[in-house]
Amino acid sequence: MPSYKAPVEDVLFLLRDVFQIDRYNNLPSFADATPDVIEAILGEAAKLCEEVLQPLNLSGDREGCVRQDERHVTTPKGFKEAFKAYAEGGWIGLPVDPEYGGQGLPHTLAIAVNEFVASANMAFGMYPGLTSGALAALLVHGNEEQKQLFAPKMTEGRWCGTMNLTEPHCGTDLGLLKTKAVPSGDGSYAITGQKIFISAGEHDLTENIIHLVLARIEGAPTGVKGISLFIVPKVNVNADGSLGEPNGVTCGSIEHKMGIHGNSTCVLNYDGAKGYLLGEANRGLNAMFVMMNHARLGVSVQGLAQSEVAYQNAAAYAKDRLQGRSISGVKSPDKAADPIIVHPDIRRNLLEIKAFNEAARALVLWTAMRSDIGHHSDDLKTSAAAEDYLGLITPVLKGVLTDVGFDNTVKAQQVLGGHGYVGEWGMEQFVRDARIAMIYEGANGIQALDLVGRKLPKDGGRAIMTFFNEVTQFAKENESDESMKPYIAPLQKAAGHLQQATMWFMQNGMGKPDNAGAGSYDYMHLFGLVALAYMWAQIAKTAIAKKSAGNGVAEKMDAKLTTGKFFMERMLPESSVRLARITSGADTMMSLPADMF
Amino acid sequence: MPSYKAPVEDVLFLLRDVFQIDRYNNLPSFADATPDVIEAILGEAAKLCEEVLQPLNLSGDREGCVRQDERHVTTPKGFKEAFKAYAEGGWIGLPVDPEYGGQGLPHTLAIAVNEFVASANMAFGMYPGLTSGALAALLVHGNEEQKQLFAPKMTEGRWCGTMNLTEPHCGTDLGLLKTKAVPSGDGSYAITGQKIFISAGEHDLTENIIHLVLARIEGAPTGVKGISLFIVPKVNVNADGSLGEPNGVTCGSIEHKMGIHGNSTCVLNYDGAKGYLLGEANRGLNAMFVMMNHARLGVSVQGLAQSEVAYQNAAAYAKDRLQGRSISGVKSPDKAADPIIVHPDIRRNLLEIKAFNEAARALVLWTAMRSDIGHHSDDLKTSAAAEDYLGLITPVLKGVLTDVGFDNTVKAQQVLGGHGYVGEWGMEQFVRDARIAMIYEGANGIQALDLVGRKLPKDGGRAIMTFFNEVTQFAKENESDESMKPYIAPLQKAAGHLQQATMWFMQNGMGKPDNAGAGSYDYMHLFGLVALAYMWAQIAKTAIAKKSAGNGVAEKMDAKLTTGKFFMERMLPESSVRLARITSGADTMMSLPADMF
Repeated sequence: MPSYKAPVEDVLFLLRDVFQIDRYNNLPSFADATPDVIEAILGEAAKLCEEVLQPLNLSGDREGCVRQDERHVTTPKGFKEAFKAYAEGGWIGLPVDPEYGGQGLPHTLAIAVNEFVASANMAFGMYPGLTSGALAALLVHGNEEQKQLFAPKMTEGRWCGTMNLTEPHCGTDLGLLKTKAVPSGDGSYAITGQKIFISAGEHDLTENIIHLVLARIEGAPTGVKGISLFIVPKVNVNADGSLGEPNGVTCGSIEHKMGIHGNSTCVLNYDGAKGYLLGEANRGLNAMFVMMNHARLGVSVQGLAQSEVAYQNAAAYAKDRLQGRSISGVKSPDKAADPIIVHPDIRRNLLEIKAFNEAARALVLWTAMRSDIGHHSDDLKTSAAAEDYLGLITPVLKGVLTDVGFDNTVKAQQVLGGHGYVGEWGMEQFVRDARIAMIYEGANGIQALDLVGRKLPKDGGRAIMTFFNEVTQFAKENESDESMKPYIAPLQKAAGHLQQATMWFMQNGMGKPDNAGAGSYDYMHLFGLVALAYMWAQIAKTAIAKKSAGNGVAEKMDAKLTTGKFFMERMLPESSVRLARITSGADTMMSLPADMF
Repeated sequence: MPSYKAPVEDVLFLLRDVFQIDRYNNLPSFADATPDVIEAILGEAAKLCEEVLQPLNLSGDREGCVRQDERHVTTPKGFKEAFKAYAEGGWIGLPVDPEYGGQGLPHTLAIAVNEFVASANMAFGMYPGLTSGALAALLVHGNEEQKQLFAPKMTEGRWCGTMNLTEPHCGTDLGLLKTKAVPSGDGSYAITGQKIFISAGEHDLTENIIHLVLARIEGAPTGVKGISLFIVPKVNVNADGSLGEPNGVTCGSIEHKMGIHGNSTCVLNYDGAKGYLLGEANRGLNAMFVMMNHARLGVSVQGLAQSEVAYQNAAAYAKDRLQGRSISGVKSPDKAADPIIVHPDIRRNLLEIKAFNEAARALVLWTAMRSDIGHHSDDLKTSAAAEDYLGLITPVLKGVLTDVGFDNTVKAQQVLGGHGYVGEWGMEQFVRDARIAMIYEGANGIQALDLVGRKLPKDGGRAIMTFFNEVTQFAKENESDESMKPYIAPLQKAAGHLQQATMWFMQNGMGKPDNAGAGSYDYMHLFGLVALAYMWAQIAKTAIAKKSAGNGVAEKMDAKLTTGKFFMERMLPESSVRLARITSGADTMMSLPADMF
């Protein structure tokens, strides 16, 4: 049976020591997040995840969700009670404005908790996760009446939320969507159409589900400029907040998926369902993008989370399993064989995962902190810089953390050999669950296009220039420090590759957009490598300082320095290949006739 | 629903045009494989695979195998009839010596057919596949009585075969195995112990199953030098070949696996089962290695096969699915959107798979041909060279084709977006099925160690030197040909990287074996890149010649040249990173204390 221990200590090290979160306690929300509060919250979250959610992961996968009829889907045994505990613990409301029932703490904390939840039970975590996403869109775009009617109940976990975008003939290209909204004359709309792949679309965890649905108001323009967003409750809600009649939305079927079996992925049929416009008419995509960015960060965390839990189980196995002898001489002469962690290739495998996870966690938390800082700061320049950074890094986080996170679950599975392929050890579930994160909330190829086609050129490349300056500045400040050399020199080299790639796009992508498209995926991963290396350089700096301060953490800080060095020596060199691929351009791939594929 | 079309034309192109198989029709076995015979056999195999085996793939996955009781396991609906058709078609006997009921055709043809079978239905293909492996070991190591008793019935598919190595506490490290064999006094042995992960271990396809079982004769030395191989029939066989009483081997359970659900992976309990020594006592590993090498080549073909079928379905989807508009201008103005094959990143994804598959197929067939040539040639030098080459390339084929083959199923799945994650399109099954190939018959980390630790240094590096000479010679012969430049220059560069890596091991791996272990996995993949590039260079040479001969195949030959160029530009540059990783050595990874993982 797989196990999980939340990396509380690593989160604390990052927030306190590396990113020094206490520098921001002059900002609202941060002020409440005192060191004690942070530690207490992470500790409680760890307990919930380790003791309540993780034990339901394997059983939830085996049991799956069952559609009883078009209005009833049952979740796996224990999910209902777990959701109650989750809701009552106030976890959905952690970052929500107290005006709507939340605790108003930094999103950074919520993101840290999300990692624990998604490691412990990814399928479960999607129920509150989608609720948070819907809540975020509601609080940004809803009118006061809508917010008062729906938000507090979602915050307390009495009602869940969903997002409804995809239709059978359109996923990525939302401009094609057909679901229609006809004004009912009373300010509401009648929504009719079919949505597919709706996560948490129907279930038995809450008495109501608030669907946010993209639809086209009768007579609206074609394409993306005629799409609006609607609030469509599963059960109609009276003006006083009490429940009315069931609405015209039903579950047509549950998808049979590769993984996340504990989450009900539904076909939802809307047949004149009562809906309420959220935000402006025909500006639905804008409203939805609030959810999307929230969701994309959340999905990137899922990639990290599955990588982490898979790593933990593989490392435990490698220390326990006796097989073969060390090639540099017997290590456990009293036993029939050495534990397999003595073998270099097992260590390589594990270190590739570990070196990724620790830097990815740093990047996630640093991104969340900058988002919080931007959100709460009075300084317009700080807010604008945060927005630039978020726009740039979101597709990188989503694409890279889910791609590599998935690869890492496969690597971890490999450590267990045949035992990794059978169900009881739980490793193959991590692979199946992690796989979806590369697809949903915009497939990773779309993230790459968003990065290269939209985020790079935006405002004359301001965001990427700022990022380069930040990295260059950090490198310059630390390059003369001898102990930092193993981290700074490789970072500078890889950042140089990213700069060359960016320049190449400027010179070759404008006139011939296929060149940008052809290199976009490699660029996204090149960016990820540089961002992770930058995190490792910062972690190394902190580790060196803490180590020389000699406060009894030397062994742990040495482990950080070794893991970071592994990243620089073994993983970062990939940047040169990414650059070579990008600069090879689009000509060859575009010249193959479609019928020759 | 997924579909499959066997790549008969590509196999014919490789055998006839690229490798000119007719050069060898002076050798036995090859003499019977006239061009007409080859074409007819591949055509018949394609028909069987497309019409009988492939339609059972998705249903076989959903239904799985069911253990009725300890002596009865039922396979999915249709498997029994399909196996009958397979057996009656003489497919098991294709390469088997006519003396034992086979057709005596080159293994090369059987390997080509194996690819089709493993694409159409990998789980099904393992039943005859394991039978072939057991048969191979029996024919090499069995005495005449054993061969006459068991081989013809296995050849005609009346009985199946298995291989029994793994036990709960040992897989890779067979020296630890505990299953014991006690002489019964009548020349037979009583076998007692537990074997796990036994593919095709119990089923309803045939009236008998011939298990080949590794066990330790009472009093034998410990470790691998005390292991013997035994023939243990599921049902005892009388001297006249008729069936006797059930033997003492039962199925304890069926594993719940990630994939290949159509194959019954069993725990087999041996309780004093009657067994017959196969080959010499205490030399069981040697005898088993005949099966292992056979099986490793077969497993590498599974990697290619899953990559091929996944590619075909992804390419078909990409040409059909309308979503978004080409960034270089609308391509299908009469439709609501362009087919997604217009997007560069979709093409990149598909071409990465296609460029691998076509070269991997070439490498498999070329390897099989050299094996056949070595086997049938009277020239000792030719035979020895073939053996050297096979020893060297087998771990590379097994490790690289299954690693990359799996990655390719994931890439192909990605092309379908959300539709790739749900069961009905079949893409997620390819991923789950392909995953096992990286693990069984020696996990890929073990292949890498076998390559670097055993195959490289063998006979003073004779095999690798010969390989380098062959590649260098080919490059030299073709480097002045202008049209070959895009293929030869990159091949030379990558081969240089492989030579540098080899040299680095010689200088740094002898004194410090951890350096060899730490770089072994990257070395295996570096070798694979060079071998595949060498295949592409040969394919390109043939394509250029065929194209200028102007016999109406120009478009197809151009497609080969473009695909090969893509490999050289986009995939081969990875060789430099592999080299960088190898030469970074073992120090960093070995310095992390085990408890810091």
